[in-house]
Amino acid sequence: MTLPTAPDAGAAVRRGPGRPRDEELDGQILAAALALIDAEQEVTVARVVAGSGVSRAALYRRWPSMTTLIAAALDVGRSVPAEIPTDGDGAGALREAVFAALLGDPSFGGTSQFTETRFRQRIRLVMADRQLQKAYWSSHVARRRGPMERAFLVGRERGILRPDLDVEASFDAIAGACYYQLIVRGDSFDDPATRARVRAALEIVWRGMLA
Amino acid sequence: MTLPTAPDAGAAVRRGPGRPRDEELDGQILAAALALIDAEQEVTVARVVAGSGVSRAALYRRWPSMTTLIAAALDVGRSVPAEIPTDGDGAGALREAVFAALLGDPSFGGTSQFTETRFRQRIRLVMADRQLQKAYWSSHVARRRGPMERAFLVGRERGILRPDLDVEASFDAIAGACYYQLIVRGDSFDDPATRARVRAALEIVWRGMLA
Repeated sequence: MTLPTAPDAGAAVRRGPGRPRDEELDGQILAAALALIDAEQEVTVARVVAGSGVSRAALYRRWPSMTTLIAAALDVGRSVPAEIPTDGDGAGALREAVFAALLGDPSFGGTSQFTETRFRQRIRLVMADRQLQKAYWSSHVARRRGPMERAFLVGRERGILRPDLDVEASFDAIAGACYYQLIVRGDSFDDPATRARVRAALEIVWRGMLA
Repeated sequence: MTLPTAPDAGAAVRRGPGRPRDEELDGQILAAALALIDAEQEVTVARVVAGSGVSRAALYRRWPSMTTLIAAALDVGRSVPAEIPTDGDGAGALREAVFAALLGDPSFGGTSQFTETRFRQRIRLVMADRQLQKAYWSSHVARRRGPMERAFLVGRERGILRPDLDVEASFDAIAGACYYQLIVRGDSFDDPATRARVRAALEIVWRGMLA
């Protein structure tokens, strides 16, 4: 997982006078918000201003609400997964592609202590704030589901998956089994037993999805 | 969901002198811990003593660790579900019994605002404290899985479910789909769309479990 770092303060100077570029401001703002989250401090306008060196006006212009800023900060370092290849030969190829995408996802794979800490922090924050939860869902999680759901749709059209398959519910069952390990069992994906259980759950759901 | 109330303070007096009964002490201690949890205050020995009127010695004797006390308090009002009838006729009867048990479970059913608040509080606490998470898992959640897992085992033995079925992974996928609604989507089981999605996920997983 890569983290944004505050851009080199000298960069703006070297580029000559004028306002720093927008992406620089964003990086500074997100890094300041993330530092507060990691320190388990409330993310307030005053603290982000103090931590980022960005003016209050610039902060408000870019992030009119702290909720969306926190949601974006929680998502730093995560990206939308690549599209899943769906042009392989038959059910076996689609299965391989889906399994590889899920079991090879870095967020379920070699989970570093760091990533897990950030994950636990994210869940705490969204459980405390439904508005943040909805913002994070719609602007981040829902987006990351796209490639897998599109692959399921192709599988349905190609007659590999059931014609009446509920694509969203399929994803919920698979992702739910993963979240369950971390949130309810308190297990880690570093543990081979956890990874075996996730794979077994995926096998069961996949069988249930087949035409 | 029923909540324990502090027992009538007059009861001990009416029963005559002597130490209050053990279950009375437990009720007072659990109610005090729960009041602190609901007020989002840290559960400490001093606060539980003050809130319950139980002596520090009696508290330590009954709950040597605050972790197990908090786990028990979070579970107040929840019980282990009834065993699932598995002697019906064939796959259809088992399916009906499992679906009724899951979709009729009060924790997934008519979720009152109150229950949902308590649920969110539970998740926040376990994400902040791995020891509590593990204690709550082993002493409470794992116990509640028993009836469903035993029904799956019977289904496997009777040849209704796959002979190699991973019973734990099956449960994880089903329960995971439910948790996913509340924790990731931020939806409520009061919403018919959420309930429909959970039912669809259950249909998919069940199909994948069949022999």
